[in-house]
This record gives sequence, C-alpha cells and structure tokens, in this order.
Amino acid sequence: MNSIINNARIVLVGTTHPGNIGAAARAMKTMSQDNLYLVNPKEFPSAVATARAAGADDILANASIHDDLKSAISDCELVITTSARTRSIPWPMVSPRECAEKVAKSNGGNVAIVFGRENSGLSNEEMELGNLVLQIPTNADYSSLNLASAVQIICYELFLKRNANEGVVKEDKVPLVSQEKIEMFYEHLEECMIEIGYHDVNYPRRLMHRMRRLFNRAQLDESEWKILRGFLAKIQEKQK
Amino acid sequence: MNSIINNARIVLVGTTHPGNIGAAARAMKTMSQDNLYLVNPKEFPSAVATARAAGADDILANASIHDDLKSAISDCELVITTSARTRSIPWPMVSPRECAEKVAKSNGGNVAIVFGRENSGLSNEEMELGNLVLQIPTNADYSSLNLASAVQIICYELFLKRNANEGVVKEDKVPLVSQEKIEMFYEHLEECMIEIGYHDVNYPRRLMHRMRRLFNRAQLDESEWKILRGFLAKIQEKQK
Repeated sequence: MNSIINNARIVLVGTTHPGNIGAAARAMKTMSQDNLYLVNPKEFPSAVATARAAGADDILANASIHDDLKSAISDCELVITTSARTRSIPWPMVSPRECAEKVAKSNGGNVAIVFGRENSGLSNEEMELGNLVLQIPTNADYSSLNLASAVQIICYELFLKRNANEGVVKEDKVPLVSQEKIEMFYEHLEECMIEIGYHDVNYPRRLMHRMRRLFNRAQLDESEWKILRGFLAKIQEKQK
Repeated sequence: MNSIINNARIVLVGTTHPGNIGAAARAMKTMSQDNLYLVNPKEFPSAVATARAAGADDILANASIHDDLKSAISDCELVITTSARTRSIPWPMVSPRECAEKVAKSNGGNVAIVFGRENSGLSNEEMELGNLVLQIPTNADYSSLNLASAVQIICYELFLKRNANEGVVKEDKVPLVSQEKIEMFYEHLEECMIEIGYHDVNYPRRLMHRMRRLFNRAQLDESEWKILRGFLAKIQEKQK
C-alpha cells in the first residue's frame, strides 16, 4: 500500500441526506480511501447512513466532524474544491485525472478534496479556501451527478493513479505552507493594505478575493511565505 | 456529438432494488448515455426508480425491457459483461478504460455492457453470452461497488473517450499579462523592496530569484498585475 495517495481526505460539506454520506463512504472504501471529514452534516450519525454504507461503516465511525470547512482543512497544504459549474471568476481547473496527478505529487502533505452541498455546492467563501477547482466532465445538459457518484469517480481515479505509481520514486519538494499559515498571510496582507491606505474595506473592489485567488493558485512554500511576511512587516514598520 | 459511443447500451440484469435502476439512469444521463435495457427487473416501473432518477426519468421511460439477456443483446456485435471477481475459467479481461477503447472502435455496431444482480452478479450462462469481461479495479478487501456506481464509472470512461479530442474540461481564462509587463512588475517590486530597506542588493539572499519563481508559477492576469502594481506604488508614495 502506498500511503502517499491514501492520505487524501474526502471532505463533505453540509450534506443534507445522510444516505449520501453512507454511499460516499462505501464509494471511498471500494477504492481504498478511508479518510472522511464531515463539515456540519445535517444528520449524523444516522442509521440511514450506516445502512447505505453497506460494510463501510468503519469509515463512518472514524469520520472527523467539523463545524466549518476552515477547521477541517487547516493542516492541509493542498485543497481541491469541486464545482459543477464554471464560476464567473475563473480558478485553475483540473479534471479528475489531473486531480489524481496533483494528489500523487503532494509528497506526503495533507490534501483535501472538498465536495459541497447536494443542491447548492460550496459557497464563494468556501471556494476561496481552495487551491484548485476540480470539475468532473459531464453532459452539458444534465450535470446532476449524485454526491456519492462524484466521490466514486474521484476515488476511482485516485485508486488507478496509486496503482500505476507503485514503486515510482517521488521527487523531492520543498514543503508547502499549511492552510493556517496561508490565512495568517492573508490577514497580514489585508492589514498592511489597509494601513497604507490602499485597501478600503468600505469599497473593497474584490481586492482580497483576487489576492486569495492569486496566492492560492501559486501555493506558497515556506521560504516564499517568510519573504512575503517579512516584506509586509517592513512596510508596516516604515509606516510608524 | 459522436453517436458511435453513445450507442453502447447499458443492460441491467435481474436488478432487485428499483432505486438502483433509477440511480443507474441518472449516472448514465450525466455522462450522455441514454440507452438503457432491463432484463427481468424485480420491480419496474417503480416510483422509487423514478425518484432516484432525479430528472433522468426520460431514460427510464425509454428503457427496453426483456425477459432474458439473450433477447436484450441479440442484435449486438460486441457484448461486454461485468464481474466483481475473477472467474475460475479465465475470460479476456478489460479495464473500464480499455472497455471505452473497445466501444470507440466498434464502429457503429451495437455494443452492450451488461451488469448483473446486486448480490449474485451474472450467471455462468449469462457470462457465456459475452465477448469480453470488464472488471473495475477495486480494493481487494472490499469490492462491494454499488450497481449505480459501477455504471457511473463505466459511463464516465465512455464519456471521456468520446470527448478525448474535444478538450474535456474547458478553461475559461482571463488574458495573462505579457512577459514585458511581468518584467516591469519585477523591476517595480525590487525597487520598492530596496526603498523600504527590505532588500539589500549587496546581500540579496536570492530574494528576487524566489519572487520570480513564485509569480512566474502563478502567471498573473491583468487585474492581479494592476492590483500589485498599485500596491507597490502606494507603498512608495508613503515612503516619501
């Protein structure tokens, strides 16, 4: 077993129907994924979920439950959100197969793949916590993938990729910063932009949104994070 | 639309739970497959099936119902059966991806992909009607794929194969900035870092090198470029 791909956590946000949680657990287990996170599920634990899990109830029993997405992914270095539609502000998009590639390259860091609510998906604020957006290609006239079906397809691609990768030596990579540190950077950046009078919170012009999109896409490593933080601190120091 | 792949019929044999028929129809429709054949379903039509089909009820309404597998596939050139386990008598085995290749090469002849009963699969007599056996790779310790999940994976591979030349996930892209503008940004950034005393050209610490690597990786678009340039100008203005 190659734990490098197995570590991807499947995060289900605001799931309405407990049956879908059970079916997702079953889908995961068939593909040897066992790391389930639930954010604010409407009903859980649930007998319906356990019934639908059909023998994958160990995954339900070990699920990690959170109040919001931020806390479910705070220790992740790569966060992949999912979307059924193309958003107006474009994010870097990946297909399921490309997603599996990204996960395989994550080199042991925590990775989250985040699935939204059955009807409304993820909010814009939740989308902004991600580095990449995963879109499953579907019929343009009917993209109504069931939640567990979407999980099944992704886990299938992860499984294929892991089996293809067995025995392949991973390249060395600089560690990426955690989601928590990224949030510290955004807070620092916003504070600094406000202090020098560049950012007006009463007239935000989607400025922080755009900065998040830029730096999430880039995925900062430790040394870049330190340089940017040092730069911001120096700007602030000069203000005083 | 390429009807050559669309013509693959999905044949469900002896399905026990009508909900699985509905879920399979939904899975098919998300992947633009609409050709459903049912062999001796336990309960059909069914309100449960229609509910689970969630808008794919046109596929249920058009389903072709048969008493035995033989009559459902009598006009097919290629019959691919599915099996969760390796049979004692070895058949030519294909993966979902290879199955999609075979279907793509069928050149307009009718193709059937046959799924067995939830608990017992296909009988040996039914298996013998097939040309190839399709096996979905799964966890060796838990291969309990839900029927609709299995249909989903196969239809996903058929869909990808059909769209292979069309660019699967379309990327909506804002124009990226020119190399010339990127250089202007790096000069501006360096100038600003020097002015506030963060960057010492006599002791550069590979700082600009790291910034180049970061922003080259991110590939700035026009609006991001303007925001960053505006930010730098404001920092400089505050210095004076």
